Amino acid sequence: MSKGIKIATIGGGSSYTPELIEGFIKRQDELPVRELWLVDVEAGREKLEIVGNLAKRMVKKAGVNMEVHLTLDREEALKDADFVTTQLRVGLLDARVKDERIPNSYGVVGQETNGPGGMFKGLRTIPVILDICKDMERLCPDAWLINFANPAGMVTEAVLRYSNQKKVVGLCNGPIGIERNIAETLGVDVSEIYVEFVGLNHMVFAKTVYHNGKDVTKDVVYKMTEDEAGSSLKNINATGWDKTFLRTLNMIPIDYLRYYWQTKQQLEDQARAYAEHGTRAEVVKKVEAELFELYKQEELAEKPKQLEQRGGAYYSEAACNLINSIYNDKRDIQIVNTRNNGAILDIDPDSAVETNCVITRQGPIPLASGRLPIAINGIIQEIKTFERLTAEAAVTGDYDKALLAMTINPLTPSESVAREMLDELLEAHKEYLPNFFK
Amino acid sequence: MSKGIKIATIGGGSSYTPELIEGFIKRQDELPVRELWLVDVEAGREKLEIVGNLAKRMVKKAGVNMEVHLTLDREEALKDADFVTTQLRVGLLDARVKDERIPNSYGVVGQETNGPGGMFKGLRTIPVILDICKDMERLCPDAWLINFANPAGMVTEAVLRYSNQKKVVGLCNGPIGIERNIAETLGVDVSEIYVEFVGLNHMVFAKTVYHNGKDVTKDVVYKMTEDEAGSSLKNINATGWDKTFLRTLNMIPIDYLRYYWQTKQQLEDQARAYAEHGTRAEVVKKVEAELFELYKQEELAEKPKQLEQRGGAYYSEAACNLINSIYNDKRDIQIVNTRNNGAILDIDPDSAVETNCVITRQGPIPLASGRLPIAINGIIQEIKTFERLTAEAAVTGDYDKALLAMTINPLTPSESVAREMLDELLEAHKEYLPNFFK
Amino acid sequence: MSKGIKIATIGGGSSYTPELIEGFIKRQDELPVRELWLVDVEAGREKLEIVGNLAKRMVKKAGVNMEVHLTLDREEALKDADFVTTQLRVGLLDARVKDERIPNSYGVVGQETNGPGGMFKGLRTIPVILDICKDMERLCPDAWLINFANPAGMVTEAVLRYSNQKKVVGLCNGPIGIERNIAETLGVDVSEIYVEFVGLNHMVFAKTVYHNGKDVTKDVVYKMTEDEAGSSLKNINATGWDKTFLRTLNMIPIDYLRYYWQTKQQLEDQARAYAEHGTRAEVVKKVEAELFELYKQEELAEKPKQLEQRGGAYYSEAACNLINSIYNDKRDIQIVNTRNNGAILDIDPDSAVETNCVITRQGPIPLASGRLPIAINGIIQEIKTFERLTAEAAVTGDYDKALLAMTINPLTPSESVAREMLDELLEAHKEYLPNFFK
Amino acid sequence: MSKGIKIATIGGGSSYTPELIEGFIKRQDELPVRELWLVDVEAGREKLEIVGNLAKRMVKKAGVNMEVHLTLDREEALKDADFVTTQLRVGLLDARVKDERIPNSYGVVGQETNGPGGMFKGLRTIPVILDICKDMERLCPDAWLINFANPAGMVTEAVLRYSNQKKVVGLCNGPIGIERNIAETLGVDVSEIYVEFVGLNHMVFAKTVYHNGKDVTKDVVYKMTEDEAGSSLKNINATGWDKTFLRTLNMIPIDYLRYYWQTKQQLEDQARAYAEHGTRAEVVKKVEAELFELYKQEELAEKPKQLEQRGGAYYSEAACNLINSIYNDKRDIQIVNTRNNGAILDIDPDSAVETNCVITRQGPIPLASGRLPIAINGIIQEIKTFERLTAEAAVTGDYDKALLAMTINPLTPSESVAREMLDELLEAHKEYLPNFFK
Repeated sequence: MSKGIKIATIGGGSSYTPELIEGFIKRQDELPVRELWLVDVEAGREKLEIVGNLAKRMVKKAGVNMEVHLTLDREEALKDADFVTTQLRVGLLDARVKDERIPNSYGVVGQETNGPGGMFKGLRTIPVILDICKDMERLCPDAWLINFANPAGMVTEAVLRYSNQKKVVGLCNGPIGIERNIAETLGVDVSEIYVEFVGLNHMVFAKTVYHNGKDVTKDVVYKMTEDEAGSSLKNINATGWDKTFLRTLNMIPIDYLRYYWQTKQQLEDQARAYAEHGTRAEVVKKVEAELFELYKQEELAEKPKQLEQRGGAYYSEAACNLINSIYNDKRDIQIVNTRNNGAILDIDPDSAVETNCVITRQGPIPLASGRLPIAINGIIQEIKTFERLTAEAAVTGDYDKALLAMTINPLTPSESVAREMLDELLEAHKEYLPNFFK
Repeated sequence: MSKGIKIATIGGGSSYTPELIEGFIKRQDELPVRELWLVDVEAGREKLEIVGNLAKRMVKKAGVNMEVHLTLDREEALKDADFVTTQLRVGLLDARVKDERIPNSYGVVGQETNGPGGMFKGLRTIPVILDICKDMERLCPDAWLINFANPAGMVTEAVLRYSNQKKVVGLCNGPIGIERNIAETLGVDVSEIYVEFVGLNHMVFAKTVYHNGKDVTKDVVYKMTEDEAGSSLKNINATGWDKTFLRTLNMIPIDYLRYYWQTKQQLEDQARAYAEHGTRAEVVKKVEAELFELYKQEELAEKPKQLEQRGGAYYSEAACNLINSIYNDKRDIQIVNTRNNGAILDIDPDSAVETNCVITRQGPIPLASGRLPIAINGIIQEIKTFERLTAEAAVTGDYDKALLAMTINPLTPSESVAREMLDELLEAHKEYLPNFFK
Repeated sequence: MSKGIKIATIGGGSSYTPELIEGFIKRQDELPVRELWLVDVEAGREKLEIVGNLAKRMVKKAGVNMEVHLTLDREEALKDADFVTTQLRVGLLDARVKDERIPNSYGVVGQETNGPGGMFKGLRTIPVILDICKDMERLCPDAWLINFANPAGMVTEAVLRYSNQKKVVGLCNGPIGIERNIAETLGVDVSEIYVEFVGLNHMVFAKTVYHNGKDVTKDVVYKMTEDEAGSSLKNINATGWDKTFLRTLNMIPIDYLRYYWQTKQQLEDQARAYAEHGTRAEVVKKVEAELFELYKQEELAEKPKQLEQRGGAYYSEAACNLINSIYNDKRDIQIVNTRNNGAILDIDPDSAVETNCVITRQGPIPLASGRLPIAINGIIQEIKTFERLTAEAAVTGDYDKALLAMTINPLTPSESVAREMLDELLEAHKEYLPNFFK
Repeated sequence: MSKGIKIATIGGGSSYTPELIEGFIKRQDELPVRELWLVDVEAGREKLEIVGNLAKRMVKKAGVNMEVHLTLDREEALKDADFVTTQLRVGLLDARVKDERIPNSYGVVGQETNGPGGMFKGLRTIPVILDICKDMERLCPDAWLINFANPAGMVTEAVLRYSNQKKVVGLCNGPIGIERNIAETLGVDVSEIYVEFVGLNHMVFAKTVYHNGKDVTKDVVYKMTEDEAGSSLKNINATGWDKTFLRTLNMIPIDYLRYYWQTKQQLEDQARAYAEHGTRAEVVKKVEAELFELYKQEELAEKPKQLEQRGGAYYSEAACNLINSIYNDKRDIQIVNTRNNGAILDIDPDSAVETNCVITRQGPIPLASGRLPIAINGIIQEIKTFERLTAEAAVTGDYDKALLAMTINPLTPSESVAREMLDELLEAHKEYLPNFFK
């Protein structure tokens, strides 16, 4: 890497790209990115150009030594890359609309992480990522794959089990958000605390919080769940979780747990939100359209503030920090998706987990955290099972495995609903599921 | 045991008792039961007398050498017993009505095995059983506790973790039923097949079926799920499970899995059944009333056929076979609830599991079955977690633990519904939950 | 198997064969062996004929319906066999002499189970057995391989890991001997006790003894180690183990543990025995020569008593019982070498262990015994490591792996002695180690 | 700790103390040690004074703000301490002479780490350390115990299992030495490499070496084992290990492995060394006497160079670095003895292991390393077993457990030699083994 770093960003036309550019610019002193290749597919050509030109203007304005290349030719971009980041969205936001709407129409929570909708995002995304892995083996065998395409946990699981790409890390901005929230609750700087995370992507828990070497988890949870000032209703607090429940749990679950432990409210919220302004995907589409209008403005040469509303806070932070720590062998602790290797005793050593890792030049090394607390062991195992079956279905295109995965997801109310949803979703996403429609 | 066997049956006034009597009479040659003590509480005195007198008539007619004692004094019954069987129902069927109705009123499946209703059956039953264990330690330290009070899995878990009674076996008639069903499907005698069961009580799967040393699981599942003759609807078959789903699963789940994998239909079925003839508890109450009318008839001196409708087929079979095999060191294989000890690798060695065991004079020894198939690992872990938290709540009377258990059960739609159900169920069962209302 | 059983015995010219014949004759009623094929190699032709003719005379005298075939054509014998038993000795007793003498000359215990000598027996035997497995796959894919060629543990490990022959059982007469010894000590019939064995072949322990359902291990060990009548020396008792040591261990180790825990005496004993009458192999050679003289006698038509001195007591018992239980689905408990599958928690589920199994038509199912007692965990892990490395070396012919295996064996005093012994043993057995001398 | 750090050093009269002083002086800027209490027992009073006065002179010369206190009153020293370091030697070097000589007289390697001699060092030391733990609970409940009294692994095991002192770390300078050796071999700075260590104290292996993110273990081992220039003998290289063996092992074992894998040479070396200049303990005694003569010199006010010959290189480095990283939450990686918690899958999560840990203010967190390579699994399990039995014997004073531990140690040639050595060692150390001679 002596001549500077080459990065290939697959899905480079994403609205998130300016975040990444900003991150590289900020770290230029220690992270000498010399070539950044933004790659996209034909359908994303226009966006790629808009965002790519913004990127070029940002780099120029910052006066850093970094070439930005725009291309539809993935091979060219991968050739001799040091890091490959994947932020692609197979089927674009239109596919996400279906992932959300179709389950909803069966009375099931629709979302793109680990329910039936997330399962289809996985079925579409995994084969594409595995294809990239094959290219990498040939074109940049020493490169790291930094994936933040969702569902990041399933994708990491699939890469670990079904490819030769062992240098892979799955990224999520969720844990960083929780960590900052905890620091704020305690009124201290984030560097003063240590938070132990255990679980899976979108199924992770801040299990223990330390401040000055002391376990302060209980204090944190109590402070977070204090009744809101002026509230006359019991159990209304900033976390949105039942106060007694969260205090008994004595951990901070990532928000996605609401799909499982607040299913009823989620369905109601989704129904209400839909009535008001369509699915989340449709909202995002609108936000994106506006963002791209902004990006087009020739005078814009930095990340616009409006991007923050898009919802990906800390993504750049997470990705750039990770690349920086690998490149510079920083050996700091980050929360990423990696091969478990026994760090969490209840989960298969070969499976992907999301947990605290030391980031070294040879990659993330997970920190041992022993057994899972029994209160969360069940749901984590359930989702890991679901992830493994989905990954297998994605690779094989086996309808039966897909039905099994769909049925055992706790959000699915029955095997017959599973079958109906599955059939409708398969049909809806036919175009992006070649393994199922060979 | 040289002077013949003494058995104490706690909850002796149960309508099932004649099954047990018949079982002992049939096995008299190898299983010399000399004293049978039927114990009940004051509230069950009348039933105890009715069923006890029938028992005496049965024994007399059969001409076997067995004394039947009726008593409300548990200590007298336990003194020097060789086996203690527990078939008690704390709060009687009225409590079951609440276990079923209250969850239903929240749109949640109501039943007495492992959902919110089953949780309360556990909370009521566990302290009573632990109390019996303490008495046994003092009065019959060498005796075996054979529990078939539900939820048998949770109760066994609680006895293993919170008592000194290591000689405990939990029993369920479910696996025997599945085994016979499989034999029938294959058209062979049950002795010709070998069925490997793995899981927990009411959460068990016939994982592999062997016939003549060959794995015939696939054949069995295919035969079981053949379309019904004349059916014009797809996927209608004798199992009630979606054909493709069950064939992919390639195991036979116990019927209680419907609560989890056919939640929607179960709720509809419960609603319909309720509209027609009340809860299952209410139906059973009516059946029981009729049974006791029958039992009263002085000329009746054998188990009446009507008992079979009661739903406990094979209970006597299961209990008497188990006692017989322990007493005679038969070393045959039975499916019981016992300490895992590593037999199922994914479950804590100290937890109770329901699986194939060799029954020896020193008790059941579980057969190693390795890892759980991943498709069922999640749900089993989820329920084991629930069982452990419930057992802990039952012993401690800790409201918070109970809330946690209630919330994580996959049938519960949210922590706030969990709290409401919990509060209502606690209030409804107050009388039988002294640990919670100290 | 409706037309009766066909058995192929590889190494049929062994002096043990009459034991096997007697076993089949005795069990003729339930175990209808119709064809017995005794197979040997050219070098064993003479012995094969002698012992084969005795076998024919035995069968004729007993009047049973069993054809005895003698052949040097292994394929003919294997074709459609139901059971294949292997009792072969690659390199014959001359090789054993070297296995014993060469280590001895380095001051190391020489023997054919799990030390440096046993390692070479493994290196010679494993490739031959794997070759038989390949033939079986083609010629008798449903047959069971019953191996009692030593080192039986290593061979079973190798078959499980490096062949497709999943229907394999390794057999040793050791546990039967211990069990009988225990019964004798207690003065009861062997059927009245239950002995739990854990460990590996030639590295097994009677961990717990039950009589009438009670744990009597302590009594057994105390009785076994009572001072010999009239002994004025402390710690002289029938077991040959230090009294305090064995009582503290509270288990009965198989005699082969003496190589590890009485290394010094073993070396002295081997030196003394050698001075008196040569190696064990040389003694056996002499016994064998005498036996074959006996076998030649035309009037002999039953197993001669002198065979018992040969040292293989209960071999026939073990082998015939196993075949009988598989054939008749007896579901009785035998101690055999099989895939662990979690039965012993400390050992890889995929490794071979020697432990209590239920013998069914679909093969042995090991009984869960949880964690190993810590006092024996170390040595068992050490030997399992050694077995796995040896198996790998045997299959690959990799000199380095062999050196590693040789070095880590606790009997080997250093890596440099390991290398010298290894080189000398490789040279000595060159003829039978084609994988190492390709 | 805002007012500066208080450290209590038990065994403060040790000749190593100047190393520690130097370490604190060097780190004064970030590690504000304000009080250092050197504690010793009556028998060490003179040494304490000599070394203590040197310490005072060193501090004065360096001009740092640190009070050095000398005391025989342990309680005074422990009161409100932040860190307690233990470097005590129960029975002084005279006891070590016996630990070395007595096993030697039975033809057994004598040393103070993990053989029979080390076992007795453990038996003497563990009760004293547990006593300190009890005092700490009362006098400085938040303090960390940093133990480098040998055998550090056994002591850590004992503290974890038999005390309430959960804040304990066991230290050894071995891994640092290996790491530097590796860096030297590669010709790079130690900061450029990453070495993954797995195992136990004095039984640890450099399993994988990374340089610039690449696994270079093989290169390192090859370079280390290159034939010495000019050597005409095969296999003579700088490591002292057989070249082929080490290359096949593909790890770097700590030197103490020679006791197990080069037993023969070790015995010869010990015999030769003894003939030349007595036991290692006797050599050390002489070196120490000379050191104390030096320490007495009033003009000496820094660590004398001669201390380096004493053999404890990097001890100060290890101890000061650890204290520094805990105090300043450095989150760097150090190799220490801590609770396994699943980091090494083959070892009980509750046992002590020596492996890479992130050092945080809340203590060391071990990095997950998965399964042990099978070649080293056996010996590590063997020694862990030995450590656990020794710790149990130390705490209970149970002769039988001690015999068991002594017998299963791979250096012990038989249970009868074990008994003889045990009896002689017990008698020899009687004074320091109150638990055995109550």
